[in-house]
Parts: sequence; structure tokens; C-alpha cells
Amino acid sequence: MFKHDKNLLEMVRVERPNPQYATMLQEQLGGPNGELKAALQYFSQSFRIKDPEIKDLFQDIASEELSHMEMVATAVNMLNGHDIDVTGTQPAGNIEANVLTGLAPYLTNGSGVPFTATYVNVTGDLPADILSNIAAEQRAKVVYEYLHRQINDKHVRQMIDFLLNREEAHNTLFRQAFQKIQANGSDRDWGVDEDARLYFDLSTPGVNHFNLNNPQAPSFQNPNLTQ
Amino acid sequence: MFKHDKNLLEMVRVERPNPQYATMLQEQLGGPNGELKAALQYFSQSFRIKDPEIKDLFQDIASEELSHMEMVATAVNMLNGHDIDVTGTQPAGNIEANVLTGLAPYLTNGSGVPFTATYVNVTGDLPADILSNIAAEQRAKVVYEYLHRQINDKHVRQMIDFLLNREEAHNTLFRQAFQKIQANGSDRDWGVDEDARLYFDLSTPGVNHFNLNNPQAPSFQNPNLTQ
Amino acid sequence: MFKHDKNLLEMVRVERPNPQYATMLQEQLGGPNGELKAALQYFSQSFRIKDPEIKDLFQDIASEELSHMEMVATAVNMLNGHDIDVTGTQPAGNIEANVLTGLAPYLTNGSGVPFTATYVNVTGDLPADILSNIAAEQRAKVVYEYLHRQINDKHVRQMIDFLLNREEAHNTLFRQAFQKIQANGSDRDWGVDEDARLYFDLSTPGVNHFNLNNPQAPSFQNPNLTQ
Amino acid sequence: MFKHDKNLLEMVRVERPNPQYATMLQEQLGGPNGELKAALQYFSQSFRIKDPEIKDLFQDIASEELSHMEMVATAVNMLNGHDIDVTGTQPAGNIEANVLTGLAPYLTNGSGVPFTATYVNVTGDLPADILSNIAAEQRAKVVYEYLHRQINDKHVRQMIDFLLNREEAHNTLFRQAFQKIQANGSDRDWGVDEDARLYFDLSTPGVNHFNLNNPQAPSFQNPNLTQ
Amino acid sequence: MFKHDKNLLEMVRVERPNPQYATMLQEQLGGPNGELKAALQYFSQSFRIKDPEIKDLFQDIASEELSHMEMVATAVNMLNGHDIDVTGTQPAGNIEANVLTGLAPYLTNGSGVPFTATYVNVTGDLPADILSNIAAEQRAKVVYEYLHRQINDKHVRQMIDFLLNREEAHNTLFRQAFQKIQANGSDRDWGVDEDARLYFDLSTPGVNHFNLNNPQAPSFQNPNLTQ
Amino acid sequence: MFKHDKNLLEMVRVERPNPQYATMLQEQLGGPNGELKAALQYFSQSFRIKDPEIKDLFQDIASEELSHMEMVATAVNMLNGHDIDVTGTQPAGNIEANVLTGLAPYLTNGSGVPFTATYVNVTGDLPADILSNIAAEQRAKVVYEYLHRQINDKHVRQMIDFLLNREEAHNTLFRQAFQKIQANGSDRDWGVDEDARLYFDLSTPGVNHFNLNNPQAPSFQNPNLTQ
Repeated sequence: MFKHDKNLLEMVRVERPNPQYATMLQEQLGGPNGELKAALQYFSQSFRIKDPEIKDLFQDIASEELSHMEMVATAVNMLNGHDIDVTGTQPAGNIEANVLTGLAPYLTNGSGVPFTATYVNVTGDLPADILSNIAAEQRAKVVYEYLHRQINDKHVRQMIDFLLNREEAHNTLFRQAFQKIQANGSDRDWGVDEDARLYFDLSTPGVNHFNLNNPQAPSFQNPNLTQ
Repeated sequence: MFKHDKNLLEMVRVERPNPQYATMLQEQLGGPNGELKAALQYFSQSFRIKDPEIKDLFQDIASEELSHMEMVATAVNMLNGHDIDVTGTQPAGNIEANVLTGLAPYLTNGSGVPFTATYVNVTGDLPADILSNIAAEQRAKVVYEYLHRQINDKHVRQMIDFLLNREEAHNTLFRQAFQKIQANGSDRDWGVDEDARLYFDLSTPGVNHFNLNNPQAPSFQNPNLTQ
Repeated sequence: MFKHDKNLLEMVRVERPNPQYATMLQEQLGGPNGELKAALQYFSQSFRIKDPEIKDLFQDIASEELSHMEMVATAVNMLNGHDIDVTGTQPAGNIEANVLTGLAPYLTNGSGVPFTATYVNVTGDLPADILSNIAAEQRAKVVYEYLHRQINDKHVRQMIDFLLNREEAHNTLFRQAFQKIQANGSDRDWGVDEDARLYFDLSTPGVNHFNLNNPQAPSFQNPNLTQ
Repeated sequence: MFKHDKNLLEMVRVERPNPQYATMLQEQLGGPNGELKAALQYFSQSFRIKDPEIKDLFQDIASEELSHMEMVATAVNMLNGHDIDVTGTQPAGNIEANVLTGLAPYLTNGSGVPFTATYVNVTGDLPADILSNIAAEQRAKVVYEYLHRQINDKHVRQMIDFLLNREEAHNTLFRQAFQKIQANGSDRDWGVDEDARLYFDLSTPGVNHFNLNNPQAPSFQNPNLTQ
Repeated sequence: MFKHDKNLLEMVRVERPNPQYATMLQEQLGGPNGELKAALQYFSQSFRIKDPEIKDLFQDIASEELSHMEMVATAVNMLNGHDIDVTGTQPAGNIEANVLTGLAPYLTNGSGVPFTATYVNVTGDLPADILSNIAAEQRAKVVYEYLHRQINDKHVRQMIDFLLNREEAHNTLFRQAFQKIQANGSDRDWGVDEDARLYFDLSTPGVNHFNLNNPQAPSFQNPNLTQ
Repeated sequence: MFKHDKNLLEMVRVERPNPQYATMLQEQLGGPNGELKAALQYFSQSFRIKDPEIKDLFQDIASEELSHMEMVATAVNMLNGHDIDVTGTQPAGNIEANVLTGLAPYLTNGSGVPFTATYVNVTGDLPADILSNIAAEQRAKVVYEYLHRQINDKHVRQMIDFLLNREEAHNTLFRQAFQKIQANGSDRDWGVDEDARLYFDLSTPGVNHFNLNNPQAPSFQNPNLTQ
């Protein structure tokens, strides 16, 4: 069951409306590495998880991502300002807010592409799902880094900073979970078959020095974390 | 902020696995009238609502729809059963569970079309948003009626019954909200312009007896509710 | 059978080309509340309608929406002007007209998202279909209100005025149809089940005063219309 | 302006309901080579055409394709039968009719993928648009050939026969139009540049005997048609 | 098997970064008439072709289109420049490069709509497939003509010139292939049925002078090519 | 530049046609974890990579994934058999092959959803891109495991075995690459900020034992690989 608390996870403010930035920030509302995608991915994956600790971890983070989505939507809403722009000259990507949603936040990426569940990765295999999540968190962090550079509003920067660091925390947690379950599921018997140890040099001229002589399912080792 | 309670809003059970029905039920997970769509629609609309009572109503129902989504996903997960079908002869619509998600619930409609935010209607105009919600709840109820007829599993029927009645409750609440705000926003000055009172008879031969002599913004009158 | 008359339903003119506004207006050509969506929705719904008067109504309005689509497309075409902009600096949303369609109108929303039938709601249940149409017409009116504010071209304003009022007329007609068929289909036995009369207060702190003690299927009562 | 005549372009009957075939036939309702796509393509292209004869041709055929769409939808509706299947074991592809549309025709392809305007090709260049239409008509004919083979219902076969031959007629007309306008627009100065006369043999071993020594914009020559 | 050569098919340079033009050029990377679409269409079609010469032709051109895709992506990458724009005021369509891809080329059209396989036409019928390809090449040429007019960068113009002429060469080759196979598959028995020789005048008033008295499957006759 | 060799990377055979399995296998042709997605992802990412060794690795693997796509398409084509099924009773998911593509392979997932570039993850940040690829390879392996279980055809099993092991090899290589570049880009300064070391316990009751006291950017350590 989901319950809503009218307090945001972390307070959201903006210095002033900034409709074009609102659009860019929408990338994290309804885009491929956005908060909705993250919430739905971890939520969907959680159903087939047997380990109660990991299942709880997925549900904790899914709930937090929903709460992040609410923060981002709140910021988009504030940045959109109070009134439809009557000049008829919208900045890039900000059209729908003026012709469709009445300045309400919209579940699209920064270019207006509607959110789609094709962004959500679920396999029912725990190693694959955790690796999908580590990658998703890393991409989310990168998008927040890009967004951070393009805004001077100190309140918005503060919110992005918070969210960026939270994605990093989730990432660390998923990496810990990966260590815990390693050599399970699709990570079993890694590199046993000969075909798994070949290198095909198909782009010429090639400079590759990687070798595959002794491959095994590697893990996320983190000295600091595993002490 | 969203918080998750590991207890479902209402207990979900199934008599036995039924993979094909799982697929059909998925219509209410990731389909156009499903629970995710409802939750995201009311959530997105709530940002521009000023009336605190109506804003609270939208947030209450959005949270409940998220909780419904969890119930439906739980049922789909149970109906999918324990093991990938090894016969290679999947019933209609049940392919992704066997080749992609490892039997985990998937955010698609009953035919495998991924959820898309194009299902979500937000206008920032309160009458339009409430009418969108009344229509959405009515359609959701109809889909549950169709789903109810096609399953004998008494536990699944019970869950559908519960969800169907909850959509009806939401519908009544949205109709009450519509009465409260009527003649606001896009419902103002209804039928004032002459063009709003014309009938174009473009499909021939026509039998239409509707007339538009005295149109005004109508409301949802419910004698029992308004006493 | 559909027949085409080279005369538009209402004459369309523009004061001068305005490529960016053309893009914004495209929202009503291929967007979620646009004319194509409306035409296809009523057309698709009409097949399962038994009441000849209501069936005729749906077909009349579907045909008119096709004619509206032609008017909007004509305006977009005129607003796009005569020549590809050679500056390589397109205003927001106007890229496809310059790189793809050679300034012809394109079936997308204002941001370039291609029309999709996911916008079209059909259930085969008459109350649900009519409510979907009432909501669709209300949203279409709101979009025209937003578009009206963002253009000074008096001819374009006149066209939008006409279309806006026509959506209002359709809305009134669908509300009349809803009254005619009420307590049928999915509106039967409203509020009979106890679960349909509960309120779940899931967003805290809540201020909701809505009550569900005596719910029944409400109708659109319009004193002026029902005399 | 579009007007609707309640008579179909050609009468549609079915020997008996056949829900799975209904689904397959839906390919021509909302699929990539279906009637809706054709109608919208020719309609959209017509706005930039200056030659009145060719513009009229495009509008004539667009209107006929809308009328075909109505015929196909009527057949799908009849083939879907009278009642929701209560067995919960839908044949491939027939799920949405039972859980969503209440057996009404739905604007998808045969697999349930919703119609999208990405199927529609518009360039504003007459040679390119006509060639797009010739190709579209040829593909539509092929789909009808496939559909014809997979049904024994004599009435459905008769309808498919009619539609297949109409696509052939449209195809011939578009080829005539191509002859009329040839060496215009994108067909001008064909093969003038040296790069337009090279052959890159990139798939080895190759057996290609095509040569590009003297390329010019070719036309559709039809001795019988040009006499 | 596909092999990659680190040399481009033709060298790509740009005079200077031009992020907005990068976006417009992306139309030919991931748009409906772009290089990826062309490559995948000819590749997919090639599997059912029996004539070894034509099969080889399709595979040669598919490989070349992949190599074109690489050239276009290289140009987009260079035009995007070296650094994320920190002004937060992206020109139309250039948002994703700044918030998502870190300036890497992205598989969308010029408006940010992700590439979709709905652009790809495959029928398994050789005349239909070849006509689809002729039309696709003609549209690709038109898009390059539009793109050519909107850029002054001489290196980019040179690349577009090359690609435009190559599409023309492919077009000529597909037209030659069409001549070779004519009156096969869906081109057999053209115009035999009476319904294939009727003209429905559905757009009034009409001026059409096309006639269908003696239709037969026409071919691409090119005097210069067939000598 | 891409060149095509008519020899497959590895020979493909099937014991007998199996149209339904063809459909399921299509998941790896045009699905979210399929070969086309992998090829396009690594290809797109390669443009912003500066390290020549890693750039070469990405291009080698992208080329191999294209060659895998060709193998999968070849198998789908063989499994589809020689003739359209005339019974009009297609097994789940196999409709398009019979009504649209004439049994040619089609770029969709197992349920007929067309390939979309929304599957492709590109960020321009090397750690994020490599982690995306590790996750993608892991998911691809899982899908092949599922597919392997559902077919008895020994030749198809052999092909799947080969492809599964190749994905494992790519995975190992990407993990090696991740080790090589670690603490770069988005992996710098990991866990420095306090917000990156908090755990929000939002799903109750919770059992989580994960701690975040000393988080640092972890790496893939593989004792066997790093000796």
C-alpha cells in the first residue's frame, strides 16, 4: 500500500520562474533516466525477489523515487510560473505547457516525448535486475550533473544536488546488493564455455588489448564497503 | 512524499495460476484505463489545484490507485505461476512473461503494448480535469466488468469486485467535486456564442432529435447526493 | 461512406505567415485533444451503438470533427508560409515542417510527437463512451482557449473562436445524450456495494469533506435543457 | 468539408462471427498499410499540391480510403460477434476486443499496436509523395492478398476482393499522375552528379550486374495507358 | 556478417560547431527517411529474396546505408561541439544533447522523436518491397535537399551533396531492379478485375481527367538505362 | 564504414519450421534486450569515447551485435517456414508474419511491439555507458536462457548457446573496461556528500541491513581477470 504525506521528502523552492529550464528538468520527470522510470523499475522487479532484505531495499528505493518524482514535478510546476505566455514564441521544448497542460508538469522527457514503459527493465533474474539498477542510477546521476551546470537558480541547484547524491546512495546500495547475491542466477558458471572466451576483432584496424583468457563472473569489490 | 506499507490495501489471493488470464489482467496494470494511468493522471493534475479540499481528494485517490496498481501486479504475479512454460506454445499475449520478465508483472496492456503517458490527461483547467477523471473511472469500471466475466477464480473475482467498486466510489467523488466547482474555468459562459448552439447534420440520412436552443453548462445533479 | 466537399465547413484565412504558431496550432491537428482524435473516437464508438438517434449524433459529430481537422490543417498550412526557412534556426517545434514535410501540415502535437491511437477511447459501453466524449470536448475547448490567448492574428482568432464554440456545442449534445441513456450499462446499480461507499484517506494531513453515504449514479442535470 | 452517408461504399456482410480473423483484419484498419494511414497520407499531402487535377485526385482517393476504413471497421465489428468470450482463452491478438473495446473495432494493427502517424509519409515534393503513394497502395494490395488466403467466409472474401482491386485502381492512377509530373521536383537533373552514378560493392562476394552508366530519372511507362 | 572499417565511406568535416543544425541533421540519423531506416528496411527485406542478383543489390545498399548512418552521426557529433551549453537556453530541438546524451548523436528525428521500426516497410513481395525502396530513396533525397538549403558550412554541404547523390544512385538501381522483376508477385494480372478500373469521384466539385479504361501493371521505363 | 560478408558469423540451421517459436525468438531481433538495440547502443556511445582501446572495443562489439542480429533474423526466417498459414488461426504473436511481412523477419519484440530507440542508452559519460552495457549484456543473456528452455530444436539451441556465451564474453570485456576507467567521469568523488550516505527507510516494516557509512565508487574486481 502507498500512502502520501503532503510534506515533500525535501523542501523545494525556486528563485524565479524559468519556463525553459522547467522543460529541461522535465527530463527527470518523464525521461528514460527519470524518477518515474526508476520507481516503476524497482517496484516491478520487487515482485519476484525472494531475499527479504533485498526485496525491502528495492521497495525502499522505489518509494523514495516516487518521492523524488514529486519533488521534480513540484520544481517544474514552480519554474513554469503563473501564466501562460501570450507571446506565442515558446522557447524550445516548452510548447506543451502552454498549449496543453496549463503549466502543470507533464510526464515527458525534455523534448516532449511522453514517458513510456519501454524505459523499464525487468527480467526476474536478480543479478540482471541489480545491474540494470546500478546502470540506471549512474545514468540518472549523469543527467543531474548536466542539469546542474545549466541553471544558476541556487534553490534549484540545491534540489538537484540532493537528488544527485541520493542516486549515488542508491547506486552504492545496489552495488552492495550485487555483492551479496553474486554468482547467483545469470552470474553462475561464468566463462565456462569456450565461446565466452573469444574475442572477435571486427572493427579494423583494431588496437584492443583486452584479453579473455580467464573470465569469471566479476563482482563489485569495494574495499571500503566490505571491511 | 510517498511511503510504502508492505500490507496490501486489500489482501490478494488466487485459486491457481492462470497465465493467460494474467495477461488479460495486465490491461489494468499498464493499459489505457489501468491503475498506473489513473494514479499518474490525478497526481499530475493536483499540482495546479488551488482548492485544498479538491487537491486533497486528488491526492487521496492518486495514492489509492498506486495501491490498486500494487494489488493488480500482485495478482498478475501469482497468476503467472512459478515456472517458465517450457512448451514454447504461449497463449495469446503471454509471451513477454516467458521470454522477458521471468514471470514478473509487466507494465503493458493485455496485448503487450507498453504503458505510455499519452494515456494521461492533464489540462490545468479544473472542470476539464475532473471530467477527464469521471470518464477515466467509468472506463476503468467497464474494463473490470469485462475482466470479471472471463474468470472463474473466486479470489480473483473478489479482488476485481473490490477494485470495480472502488472506481465507482472515486467516480462519485469526482462527480461531487464537479458539482462543487461548476461554472468555473472552461465551464463559464456556456452556450453564450451562437456557434455553440448550432447543429450540423453531416451524416445522412439523419434521425437526430437533439436540440441546442438553450444550452448552458450542465452539472452532475444527484438528488441523493445533494440533499 | 465519406464524401468530401472542397468548400471548408467555415472559411479559413490568416493575416500573415507565422511558422511558430503553426506548430502550436498543430496540437489540435495531431495532439491528444485534437480534431483527428475526436473524429476517430466518435467514429469507432458508433459501431456498437444501438439507439439510432445517438448513433446518428456520434456520426454527425465525427464528420464535423473531420471537417474541423481540415480547417486546422488549412490554417497550419497557411501559417507555415511559402518557403523553407533557410536560416537553419527554426523556432521551437517547427523543425519537421522545414526538414521533412516541406511546410505541409503534419499529424503531430505541438512538440512533434506523432498522432497515436492511444489517444482514442472506446469501451463499447455507452455511458463510459459518452463521458469520454464529454471530457474530450471539454479538454479540446481548453486547448483552444490556450491557443486563442497566444495569437493576435484576427483571422486565426476567428477560426479558433468558431472551433471552440463548436466543441462546446458537441459537449452540450453529449451531455444531453448522457441524460437520455442514464442508469444504463456501467451506470446501473450505482453505489449498491459497500466498497463503493468508502473513503480512503491516504494523503495526510487531509482536509477532505466529501462524503459517500448515499451514492447513486448521478446525471448531467441541466435545468435549461430539460424543461 | 467531409460528409457522411450512412450507406457504405459497398455492402459488407459476414457469413458468421470469427473473432480471430477480426483481429487479423484489423491490420487494415489501424496497421502500417491500412485504410486510415492511406486516407491521412493523401489528405495531408494534398495541401501543398498546386496542380488542380492532381489535388482533386488525392482528395478523391483520400475520401475513398476513409470509406474503405468504414467498410473494414464494419466487417471487424461483425466478425467480433455479439458477446464477450467468457472462457478467458482469447485467440492470438483478440484480447483488447474482450477486455477493452467491448468488441468494437479498434485502431490497431493485427497484433494490437495502436495506429501511429509515423506510418504517414508527407514531403511536400510531388514526385516523392506520389511514389510514396504508389508504394503504399502496392503494400496494401499485398496485405489484402495475404488476408484473402486465410479466410473462407465468402462475404469477407468478396469485400477483400473489392478493396484489393480498388487499391490497384488507386495505384494505376498514382502511376498516371507520376507520368504527368515527371522530371519535376526531386526528379529533376537526375543522375547529373558523378556520385549518382557509382556502385559500391559492400556485400561480398557480390554477383551484381546492375550498372549505373547512364542514369536518368525513369518514369512509369505503360504502353496501354499512354496510348 | 558485418565488419567495420574505421575509415568512413567518405571523409566528414565541419567548418564549426552548430548545435541547432546538428539537431536538424539528426532527422537523417533516426527519422522516418533516415539512414538507419533505409539500412534496416533493405536488410529485413533481403531475407525472402530468391533472385541472387537482387538479393546482393539489397545487401550492398543496406551496408552502404549503415555507412551513411555513420557519416551522419559523425557530422552530428562534430556539430554538437565540445561542451554542454551552460546557458540553459537550448535552441529548438537541441535539448536531449544537453541533458541526456552528453552531445553524443542520438537516434531521433529532428524533433527528438526516437527512431521506431514502424518506419520500416517489409512485405515479402518483391514488387511492393522495391516500390517501397524507390519511394524511401526519393523521400531521403528530398530531406537532404531541405537540409542542404539551411546550412552554409561548406563541409557539411559537401557531405549532404554526396549522400543526396548516393540516394539518387540507389533509387536508379531499385528502378532497374523493378524493371527486371516486373509483372511478378503483386504486379501480376494488373487491372483484370472490373473494380480495378473504376473511378470514384468523392471530392466535389472535381476536375479529374484521369481515366482507368485500360490499366496494366506499369513499369519504370528508362530509355537511357534500357538501351 | 560497414562491410557485409555473405557468410554468417556462425552457421544457422533449424530442424524444422516452428512459427510460434519464430515469434518468441523475434524478442532478440527487435526487443529491448535484442541484438539491434545492443549494436546501436555501443555504436552511438562510441562517438564520444577518447580512449582508443575502449573505442575500438565498443566498435568491435557493435559490429558483432549486428552480425548476431543477422543470425537471429536468419533463424526467424527459417522458423517461419515456407508458406503463409491459411488456417486463419495464428498462434500467439505470429500474426504480423502472416498478414504483413510475408514471413520475413520483423523488427519487433515477441509480442509485435516495433523496435524503438527508447531502448538505447547513451550518456556521453564513460562509466555510465559501460555500466549500461554490462546491464544490457546481462539482460540479453537472461533472455537467451529463457528462450533456450522453450525449444527442443537442437540447431536452434546451438545457436542460442553460441549467442548466450558471446553476450557473456562481451559482458566480461565491458567489466574489464570498467575497471580500466574507474574513478573517472560520474564515478569521481563517490560518496563525498552527506546525502550520498543516508538510508531512507520508506517501506515498512523494513528489514534492511545495508549500511552506507563508508561509500566509495566500487569497481568490478575480478581476481582471475586482474592477476
